[in-house]
Amino acid sequence: SRSIDLAVIPGDGIGQEVVAEGLKVLSAVLPEDVKLETKEYDFGAKRYHATGETLTDADLDALKKHDVILLGAIGDPSVPSGVLERGFLLKLRFAFDHHVNLRPSKLLPGVATPLAGEPQIDFVVVREGTEGPYTGNGGTIRKGTEHEVATEVSVNTAYGVERVVRDAFARAQARPRKKLTLVHKNNVLTFAGHLWTNVFNTVAAEYPEVTTDYIHVDAATIYLVTDPARFDVIVTDNLFGDIITDLAAAVSGGIGVAASGNINPSRDFPSMFEPVHGSAPDIAGQGKADPTATVLSVALLLRHLGYDAEAARVEEAVTADLTERQGKPARSTSEIGDALAVRVAG
Amino acid sequence: SRSIDLAVIPGDGIGQEVVAEGLKVLSAVLPEDVKLETKEYDFGAKRYHATGETLTDADLDALKKHDVILLGAIGDPSVPSGVLERGFLLKLRFAFDHHVNLRPSKLLPGVATPLAGEPQIDFVVVREGTEGPYTGNGGTIRKGTEHEVATEVSVNTAYGVERVVRDAFARAQARPRKKLTLVHKNNVLTFAGHLWTNVFNTVAAEYPEVTTDYIHVDAATIYLVTDPARFDVIVTDNLFGDIITDLAAAVSGGIGVAASGNINPSRDFPSMFEPVHGSAPDIAGQGKADPTATVLSVALLLRHLGYDAEAARVEEAVTADLTERQGKPARSTSEIGDALAVRVAG
Ligand SMILES: CC(C)[C@H](C(=O)O)[C@@H](O)C(=O)O
Ligand SMILES: CC(C)[C@H](C(=O)O)[C@@H](O)C(=O)O
Repeated sequence: SRSIDLAVIPGDGIGQEVVAEGLKVLSAVLPEDVKLETKEYDFGAKRYHATGETLTDADLDALKKHDVILLGAIGDPSVPSGVLERGFLLKLRFAFDHHVNLRPSKLLPGVATPLAGEPQIDFVVVREGTEGPYTGNGGTIRKGTEHEVATEVSVNTAYGVERVVRDAFARAQARPRKKLTLVHKNNVLTFAGHLWTNVFNTVAAEYPEVTTDYIHVDAATIYLVTDPARFDVIVTDNLFGDIITDLAAAVSGGIGVAASGNINPSRDFPSMFEPVHGSAPDIAGQGKADPTATVLSVALLLRHLGYDAEAARVEEAVTADLTERQGKPARSTSEIGDALAVRVAG
Repeated sequence: SRSIDLAVIPGDGIGQEVVAEGLKVLSAVLPEDVKLETKEYDFGAKRYHATGETLTDADLDALKKHDVILLGAIGDPSVPSGVLERGFLLKLRFAFDHHVNLRPSKLLPGVATPLAGEPQIDFVVVREGTEGPYTGNGGTIRKGTEHEVATEVSVNTAYGVERVVRDAFARAQARPRKKLTLVHKNNVLTFAGHLWTNVFNTVAAEYPEVTTDYIHVDAATIYLVTDPARFDVIVTDNLFGDIITDLAAAVSGGIGVAASGNINPSRDFPSMFEPVHGSAPDIAGQGKADPTATVLSVALLLRHLGYDAEAARVEEAVTADLTERQGKPARSTSEIGDALAVRVAG
């Protein structure tokens, strides 16, 4: 009999609420013969304040034993900027070698976009997750003086770039349009830019069916608002990916529906799925958060584990729910979760 | 009697056409007692192919003698990516210490925006121009092998950050809304982020009337499409500024109307004014390019030289022209320039 051993990290703020709904939908969609085991972890601001810990070696050992991780959101204004981001989220992505940060953007029916007209949006960003300016390399001298110098070092390796570029080509090849766009800034960041461009062109030779193009990250932001239909799959570095996926989420219905996966395709470590949104402390505990982004992250989780039919059912349920939601009064977090659980079970 | 000694760099592609119109408007708006002297320089792809030169020390010495520089656009697909960008544009910005890269975004009447509704857009980005990931620091080892490592180093100094932050506070103080937003990614790029944030907060104490806030660059892209009215003045680093000003241009009517100044406020070196758009080789030589961005750059140039009334006249002419243009057949580059020259003279 099959089983899923899931680590659950609700985290801070609305993370708690949306993860509960994600689990509700996950339980409802799984076939009866699949045993779902969950273990909850208390990472986040509360634990940090109580113990000073963000993510210990023992925590990593414990998490490592699970098949997969579902994360709500980590972050709270009471914790200095960077402490939980670097100490928990990035530490985990790096420790578990989550080099494929997968962020699909699809404008679903009935979802409001800030763009005029009726844009067609259906693309996926493959963001590198373990290199670039996110490595923490760099430093500060003469801190706090008028002679302070602070550096940030973007580290890019052929090994790291090639594996994510390969993943992106495989994804492009599997999609109907078979188009892959490299986003970088190779006219200014020439060292990293040449590496990315060379690797991209080399791997492209193995995928003759995939149409490729290149655009600078600044121009990419223009196309994301004027012609998002031009994108099918995008591959890009860690920082550019961070920036353009927030914009992509905004134009395709907002962070209420944006899902993501921090994936280790080799499965040496568990992958982690999380909504793109943060902990939103301003609306936490009020049942106002939209759990849709978490539920769509559960769909990515299911697909990662090979439950393709179940993943599709979750996505269809979300589409149906969003369509029906139009023009109706707002529902609470758990009402939306309940409705989705009923649909996927049905 | 007054005079302006202007270096003119038409550059590549549509740069030639739009600069001609910029000069037309500049000549028309200047009072009779102001003597306008211009000298044209042949930088760009043609000269690079003919001589291998992008910008020599002798060129810099010659340019240095002018009061100010008007640039069209530099760049051509026949030149490898990075050669003219690093060899001409960035070399000049760094050599002349253009640390204030000024990019206003205003949605003018009759200008189409990709955003739905009727967004209010009137802000200015003060982008740092001489530091960050643009310094060219970094390198490559084992180039072209599977063990290649490429680094890019973002360099940030208290000196460099403070002067641009001060410039931004002064600009915010002079505007009716008096609001300044720092855009960075201080939760991930903690070394540079702390420097920027500390300097920002320190200078803020000297400007009690200016309201300040901070947002991460990824979130900034969301606000730029969902709530651009929240911005008045933005100060940010070189790379983040590059990215968000393209997006800002896109939402406020496109790069056809986006102007910029590469400013050295201490006037040790001439400042340079240029449209944000590139050389657009696909439409070059056809009279299709909109010279408005260049004409608005001329307005920034005039204001920089203290010709405030003339700058305002140019901006008013553009606003009037855009209003009248609505629903009419497209005009050629020189027709638009002629119309603007008539307006400013009138
Ligand atoms: C919270 C932060 C560290 C993170 C990132 O920059 O990757 C977030 O913005 C994201 O996109 O997941
Ligand atoms: C052409 C390129 C070097 C330049 C930059 O990145 O600064 C351009 O994008 C700009 O914004 O002026």
